[in-house]
Amino acid sequence: MIERNKVSDWWRTRIIDMEPGRIHLRGQPIEDLIGQTGFAQMIWLLVMGDTITGHRATLFEAALVASVDHGPQAPSIAAARMAATCGVGLQSAMATGLNMLGSVHGGAGEQAVELYRECEKAGPEGLAESLDTWRAKHGRFIPGFGHRFHKPVDPRAPRLLGLVDDSAEAGAVSGVYAEIGRAIERHLAEERGKPVPMNIDGATAVIYAELGCPPPLARGFFGLSRSVGLLAHAWEQMEQGGRNKGPTPPEYRWTYDGD
Amino acid sequence: MIERNKVSDWWRTRIIDMEPGRIHLRGQPIEDLIGQTGFAQMIWLLVMGDTITGHRATLFEAALVASVDHGPQAPSIAAARMAATCGVGLQSAMATGLNMLGSVHGGAGEQAVELYRECEKAGPEGLAESLDTWRAKHGRFIPGFGHRFHKPVDPRAPRLLGLVDDSAEAGAVSGVYAEIGRAIERHLAEERGKPVPMNIDGATAVIYAELGCPPPLARGFFGLSRSVGLLAHAWEQMEQGGRNKGPTPPEYRWTYDGD
Amino acid sequence: MIERNKVSDWWRTRIIDMEPGRIHLRGQPIEDLIGQTGFAQMIWLLVMGDTITGHRATLFEAALVASVDHGPQAPSIAAARMAATCGVGLQSAMATGLNMLGSVHGGAGEQAVELYRECEKAGPEGLAESLDTWRAKHGRFIPGFGHRFHKPVDPRAPRLLGLVDDSAEAGAVSGVYAEIGRAIERHLAEERGKPVPMNIDGATAVIYAELGCPPPLARGFFGLSRSVGLLAHAWEQMEQGGRNKGPTPPEYRWTYDGD
Amino acid sequence: MIERNKVSDWWRTRIIDMEPGRIHLRGQPIEDLIGQTGFAQMIWLLVMGDTITGHRATLFEAALVASVDHGPQAPSIAAARMAATCGVGLQSAMATGLNMLGSVHGGAGEQAVELYRECEKAGPEGLAESLDTWRAKHGRFIPGFGHRFHKPVDPRAPRLLGLVDDSAEAGAVSGVYAEIGRAIERHLAEERGKPVPMNIDGATAVIYAELGCPPPLARGFFGLSRSVGLLAHAWEQMEQGGRNKGPTPPEYRWTYDGD
Repeated sequence: MIERNKVSDWWRTRIIDMEPGRIHLRGQPIEDLIGQTGFAQMIWLLVMGDTITGHRATLFEAALVASVDHGPQAPSIAAARMAATCGVGLQSAMATGLNMLGSVHGGAGEQAVELYRECEKAGPEGLAESLDTWRAKHGRFIPGFGHRFHKPVDPRAPRLLGLVDDSAEAGAVSGVYAEIGRAIERHLAEERGKPVPMNIDGATAVIYAELGCPPPLARGFFGLSRSVGLLAHAWEQMEQGGRNKGPTPPEYRWTYDGD
Repeated sequence: MIERNKVSDWWRTRIIDMEPGRIHLRGQPIEDLIGQTGFAQMIWLLVMGDTITGHRATLFEAALVASVDHGPQAPSIAAARMAATCGVGLQSAMATGLNMLGSVHGGAGEQAVELYRECEKAGPEGLAESLDTWRAKHGRFIPGFGHRFHKPVDPRAPRLLGLVDDSAEAGAVSGVYAEIGRAIERHLAEERGKPVPMNIDGATAVIYAELGCPPPLARGFFGLSRSVGLLAHAWEQMEQGGRNKGPTPPEYRWTYDGD
Repeated sequence: MIERNKVSDWWRTRIIDMEPGRIHLRGQPIEDLIGQTGFAQMIWLLVMGDTITGHRATLFEAALVASVDHGPQAPSIAAARMAATCGVGLQSAMATGLNMLGSVHGGAGEQAVELYRECEKAGPEGLAESLDTWRAKHGRFIPGFGHRFHKPVDPRAPRLLGLVDDSAEAGAVSGVYAEIGRAIERHLAEERGKPVPMNIDGATAVIYAELGCPPPLARGFFGLSRSVGLLAHAWEQMEQGGRNKGPTPPEYRWTYDGD
Repeated sequence: MIERNKVSDWWRTRIIDMEPGRIHLRGQPIEDLIGQTGFAQMIWLLVMGDTITGHRATLFEAALVASVDHGPQAPSIAAARMAATCGVGLQSAMATGLNMLGSVHGGAGEQAVELYRECEKAGPEGLAESLDTWRAKHGRFIPGFGHRFHKPVDPRAPRLLGLVDDSAEAGAVSGVYAEIGRAIERHLAEERGKPVPMNIDGATAVIYAELGCPPPLARGFFGLSRSVGLLAHAWEQMEQGGRNKGPTPPEYRWTYDGD
C-alpha cells in the first residue's frame, strides 16, 4: 500500500483522484466515462468541472470543430510542418505550433470574451463607450471582428451564430452575447462605412461567453482545437518527406537590409 | 482577387482548400461540419482523411477519453502546472507538457501498435519469437504491458478491451488485435510467473491497430488526448496562484552528489 | 547560380547576408570572426549589432556567467531534467525549460531595467514616487530585490555590482544605474525596516541598463545564460537514467482537493 | 535555517551545491567565477565538469561562434521569427526554434562525432568499411559532408579545421579527428567524382571529438550556439513588427493536393 504524504500538499488538485487500480476524474470512475462520454464532453468535464449536455454540448463541440485548421500559411501550422522535417517526434512538432498561439495568434478569442463581458455590464447604450475604453487600453483592433483574408465573410462565423440562436430559442443559453456580438458588428460597420464582419474568434467567443467560460479558456480551448490541425499537418508533412524544409522555396531568398 | 502562385508548390496539402469566404476541410465545407460533426469525428476526418462512424467512432472516442489525465506526478502534467506559475500563456504551458511526450512518456502506444502488427504477421505460433525479436531490438520492456502504480490492474484497459469486443461482435472491427494483446498478456504472465496486465497504452494501441492507424498516430492521438489534462491542470494551477512553483516544496532539497 | 527573388522582401534582416560560399554576420565575414571573437562578444554582435570590448565586454560576460544555474528546484531546470527522462532529444529538453522563462520566472530582469530607466528619468528626488507608480501599475513586487532563499544576501549581486563600479571608475560605463539600484535597496530597507537586498535579476539589470540594452533583451540574455544550466542538467539526468521521472518521489502523492 | 531533506535523493546533481547565501558551481563559488571566467569556459565547466583553457578553449569558443546563425530560411530561425509576431515572450520564441533542432536539423554534428569515433576504432585502412557500415545502418547521408547551398565550400569549415591544426601543432589536441575528417572528404570525392566538402557540422564535430565530448553534446552545444541566432532574429522581428506573420507572403498560396 502506497502511503499518502501526510506533511505537505505541494501539489493539490480537484481534477483527479487516484489509488492503485482506481482513477477518478472529477469524481467519476474513469471506467464509467470510457465508452459513455464523448470527447468534447470529457474536455468540458475535466477543464470546467461539470457536465455539459444537449444544446450546450452542441455549441461547445461546434466551437471545437470550427477552429481546427486554417492552412499552412498560419504561422503555427507552418511551424509544425517545418518541425516535422527536422527530425523531432510528432508531439514535439505539435508542441512547436501550439507554443505559437500567443496573444496575437489565437488570443483574440480570449480578448473577445473579455470585451463581450464588459459590453454586457455597460448595457446596449454603453456599447460605443465600451469599445472606446477597450481601444484606449488595448489599441485599435477590436478582437473578433474583421479578417485579412475571408472577404466578405468568414464562413464559420454565421454558422456558429446560427447555432447559438437555436440554443437561445431552446432556452439553453441566454443569447445575450450573440446580441452583443451583432451589435458590435453593426457599430463597426457604421463607424467605418463598410462591413467588418465577425470572424471565427468573435464567433467562438460568443459561444464561450454564453457557456460561462472564463476568458483565458477561450484561448485554451482554441489551443486544443487547433492542435488537431497541427497533428494533421505535421503527420501529412512527415508522410510527404523533406529534410530541413524552410518557410520558402530555396530560390526565394530573404532580403539583406544592412548597409 | 488573390491569385495563386503559379510557380511553386512548396507547401502542398490534401487537408484544407481555401479561398476568400470558403474553407473546405478534406473536401467538405466547414459550415457543413460545424454543428453536424462531433469533435472526435472531426479529429479522425482531418488526420486520417475519411469519415468514422458507429462502433468505430465509439472506439476512437473511448481511446481519446481514456488518456486525458494521469495526475500531477506525470512529468508532462507537472511541467504544465509549473509553467502556469512562471508567467507564460496558457498555450505555452500546454505546449511545455505536450513537448515532453516523447518515446518514453506517451510513446508506448506507438510501439505497441508496431509490436501488434509484427505479432499479426508472425501469427499465433510466432508470438514468443516476435516478442524475443522485439526485445533484441528495443530492450527488455514490452510496450503496453505492466504498470508501476496500477496494481493489480489499470482500470482503463479492461474497459477499453470490452468495447473492442463489442465492436468485433458487431463486425465493425476484426478483433484480431484484441486477441493478440490478450495473448501477449498470457505469455508475459507465464514467463514471469505473475500477472503483467495490459496498461492504457497497450489497450489504446489495440484500438488504434483495429482502426488501421499508422503507429505514429497512436502517439499523436495520445498527445491530443493528454492535452486536455494539460489544459485542465495548467488552468487549475493558474487559479490556485503561485509564483515560480518548483517540483518539490522548498524544504525538500536536492542532493548534492559532488565531492 | 541562385537568383535572389526580385519581387518580395517578406523576410528582411540586417543580421546575416549570405551567398553560396559566403556568410557575413553583421557585415563581417564569418571566417574572420571564428577564432578571433569570444562567444560573449559574438552574442553581443549578433543581437545588438555592434562590437563590445574591454570593461563593457567584461560586464556583459559576467552577467551571462552569473545566471547559468540555480539548481533543480527552479521550475525550468526541473522541467528540463524531467524531459530528459521522457525520450525526447537534448534540445527538446532544453527548449522545454527555456519555454518556462516567462514574465515571472526570469522576467524580473526585464522589469528591473524598465524600472531603473523610469527612476533615471525621475531623478534621485523622484525615486519614492517612481516606486509607487511602479507598484500601482504592476503590483507590490519591486523587481530585482529580495530573495526567498538567499538570506541575508545573494552572493552574485554584490560581485556584479563591484564589477560595475570598476567599469564606471574606468569610464567605460556611467555608473548611474548602479547608483539607482543601491538607492532602491536603501529605500526598501527603510520602508520595511529590514534589508531587501538586490538579487541576481536586479544586479544583471544594472549591467544591461549600463550597457544600453532594451529591456526585453535582459530577458533574452537571461534565457541564453540559463540555457547553459538547462543543457548541463538535462545531460546529467540523461546520464543518470530514469524513465518518466516525475517531480516528486512516488511515495510523495498529491493532495486530492475535491469533495 | 532550511533543513535538508534526510529521506530522499529524488533529484541529485554534481553541478550545483547551494545554501542560503552560497552558490557553488562544479565546486567553485559563483562569486569567484563571475568576472574571471569567460562565458564559453563557463559553459564547458558547467556541462563537462572541468576547466578548459588555452588552445582547447579557443577551439571550443570557435565552434560556438561558428554556428550562431544561418539565416531566416533555416526552419528554426524562421519559426522563431514567426513566433515573435504571434504575441509570445522572447524566450518562447527562442524555445520554439530550439525545439526544432532535431536529429535532422542540427543533429548532424552528433552523428558525425559518432562516425569519427567509429572510424578511429577502425583505423585508416578500415575507413571505407566504416562508411559502408554507417550507411547500412543510417541511410545514404554521411553526416557532416556536403551542402545544399554553400558551393564549392562552406567558409566555416576550413577556418575551423585550420584552428584544429594549430592546436594539434601546439600539442593541445591530437589532430586525429581532423585527419579522419579529411580522409572522409577525400574518400567521398573519389567515390562520387566530385568534391563533397566538409560542412559546418562536420567541422564542429571534429572539434567536439578532439575535445573529448560525448556525441549528444555536439547537438547540445549546437543548440546553445544557434540560440544566439534565434534570439537575434526573434528580437529583430519584434522590432520590425508584424502580426501573425506566416512563412510566405499572402499572395503566395499553398497548393491544394486533393481531388
